[in-house]
Amino acid sequence: AADLSAGREKAAQCATCHGLDGIATAPDAPNIAGDSRYYLKDQLEAFRSGRRQHQQMSIIAQGLSDEDIADLVAWYSAIEVTATMPQ
Amino acid sequence: AADLSAGREKAAQCATCHGLDGIATAPDAPNIAGDSRYYLKDQLEAFRSGRRQHQQMSIIAQGLSDEDIADLVAWYSAIEVTATMPQ
Repeated sequence: AADLSAGREKAAQCATCHGLDGIATAPDAPNIAGDSRYYLKDQLEAFRSGRRQHQQMSIIAQGLSDEDIADLVAWYSAIEVTATMPQ
Repeated sequence: AADLSAGREKAAQCATCHGLDGIATAPDAPNIAGDSRYYLKDQLEAFRSGRRQHQQMSIIAQGLSDEDIADLVAWYSAIEVTATMPQ
């Protein structure tokens, strides 16, 4: 089953652009904090299969096993986000 | 130039899946709150040009002008997000 602590460890490679907390540190990367399990899994599989393409993500996703994806999805989907709209 | 209040109005059509505050209400949609202007613009243009494809987003993006994109990007990028990691 998906493992939160394994996900946190594996997220170290994602943190460079997405942050360990899922708030992007690179301008061309999205925030992924608190995204749904469905969406995160679907996007990682899309990058792995080529259904979606991005210079770095396509390469990174090739190296991900199904278990890696499950653990990373568990980690980033478990992050709680709040959003404050401009007044 | 991009207009925040126009963006808020135009975001009504996005809110069904992404929320007015950018926190997704549909499981197959990402949170877009606080994403960078670069990323939001790039993704909307990708859906509009077909570089990225999604059943609903491809259709919605066809109807967006450059000004619509600028206003929507202004709105969603201006939303402030916080992320709290699991302990």
